[in-house]
Amino acid sequence: MLSAVFVWPIRVYYEDTDAGGMVYHSRYLNFLERARSEWLRSLGFEQDQLMHEHGIVFVVSKMEIKYLRPARFNDQLSVHVRLLEFRKVSLIFSQKIYLASDDAHLIDATVKIACIDVVRNRPHQFPQSLFQAIEHEL
Amino acid sequence: MLSAVFVWPIRVYYEDTDAGGMVYHSRYLNFLERARSEWLRSLGFEQDQLMHEHGIVFVVSKMEIKYLRPARFNDQLSVHVRLLEFRKVSLIFSQKIYLASDDAHLIDATVKIACIDVVRNRPHQFPQSLFQAIEHEL
Amino acid sequence: MLSAVFVWPIRVYYEDTDAGGMVYHSRYLNFLERARSEWLRSLGFEQDQLMHEHGIVFVVSKMEIKYLRPARFNDQLSVHVRLLEFRKVSLIFSQKIYLASDDAHLIDATVKIACIDVVRNRPHQFPQSLFQAIEHEL
Amino acid sequence: MLSAVFVWPIRVYYEDTDAGGMVYHSRYLNFLERARSEWLRSLGFEQDQLMHEHGIVFVVSKMEIKYLRPARFNDQLSVHVRLLEFRKVSLIFSQKIYLASDDAHLIDATVKIACIDVVRNRPHQFPQSLFQAIEHEL
Repeated sequence: MLSAVFVWPIRVYYEDTDAGGMVYHSRYLNFLERARSEWLRSLGFEQDQLMHEHGIVFVVSKMEIKYLRPARFNDQLSVHVRLLEFRKVSLIFSQKIYLASDDAHLIDATVKIACIDVVRNRPHQFPQSLFQAIEHEL
Repeated sequence: MLSAVFVWPIRVYYEDTDAGGMVYHSRYLNFLERARSEWLRSLGFEQDQLMHEHGIVFVVSKMEIKYLRPARFNDQLSVHVRLLEFRKVSLIFSQKIYLASDDAHLIDATVKIACIDVVRNRPHQFPQSLFQAIEHEL
Repeated sequence: MLSAVFVWPIRVYYEDTDAGGMVYHSRYLNFLERARSEWLRSLGFEQDQLMHEHGIVFVVSKMEIKYLRPARFNDQLSVHVRLLEFRKVSLIFSQKIYLASDDAHLIDATVKIACIDVVRNRPHQFPQSLFQAIEHEL
Repeated sequence: MLSAVFVWPIRVYYEDTDAGGMVYHSRYLNFLERARSEWLRSLGFEQDQLMHEHGIVFVVSKMEIKYLRPARFNDQLSVHVRLLEFRKVSLIFSQKIYLASDDAHLIDATVKIACIDVVRNRPHQFPQSLFQAIEHEL
């Protein structure tokens, strides 16, 4: 079960790099999340509305990440989002980051996201409208 | 009107640096805030309790910052906090950052902090207990 | 002496916010720098090339920033860049951040940038080509 | 093959949290790295010296991380470092993060670190002195 690939462009700025001259390793997680947020927006959902109207947030519950090659200051990146698994209270994504200039494969990640009831801090089913929109993508 | 100087030690890690080999410029603002948080804790106040019990948070409303010399990866820093002005709904701090090894003066900042009512998002008086504790410092 | 206004769009993600529900105060400095980097790119200059070919980097030497209103998670922002002063080894920018939805004025900043010789860590004149490109903007 | 556990205390500041009220998920990677840096320092090695004298840096090449429970603003954390595997050009750590107040287990991570020649950007053997110091820990 795999969705189509959603691609989001990201530019590397100074804030993303460290004194080793490369992107700081935790920063790729931010890039991965920006792309997941834009994937969700592309389906018609805004996370602030989901929080206010349904009282839910999405949190990362598990991640495996391989750092294949480093990105550097000023690089233009392509962040890929692909849905691997889809359950009532969680999603699993396959995410990859490529260098835009030559398609070099930099990052390979598998990310599990849980849907959480903000008030009770417990797992919560996805809203029906979101469930259907995601099913439609597969 | 000046309080005594409160000093907080901070180590520079990779996460704080950028590809230019120095601490990224916005990161010093984080260091300054860590020191203000520890100054407040040294007076006996925890910000999470102030939020839950009094519904207030402290926000930066204005800052002037001079970058005199750069800090680098692995440097040990001393962050200084000194109260300059103290009003019913705001505080002004003079903050400086020094290199611990030779006391080189790296950062000179003046920071205005406002006390805000979280729910109404409006200025709010400091709680009486905090007001008295700060007055006692002067 | 004022250049035309350059505008760069920025979306607020979770990484930019804090537990107070608003954008963390140092994060706006990152947004301001992203916009200055894109302004420079719009003039035809890439900072990694300037470093490799001319041995120079740009560093913030002074900043005054007023936090007028907070940005929140998922907000779309417009970051404005305008050149105020232009000397042989430094630039002064007026930068503002607005909420895209209603043009609310969030941030007002004046930022002084120095051109630095990377190896000697000393002020260095802007390359002639960059000097001319900036003059042409005024 | 397991080393003794090295423990490093870390306080959660506003900069570490997000609008969901919890520590932002990538931030734990920064905490894990701070603790590894301090573990190395406890063995007598400074990473800036290793870079200048031996031309090597340590980079994360792979990570598995489980987010068991969230940390919140102002929490005091204990970050644990334990060496799992030790080869000529890489190290594997087991790292855990606990809440200091009640020992709640928040984060469980396995982190692979590679020793890299900065100039050639290729794997490089650990310096002999470091190799021996680490062996001595086991």
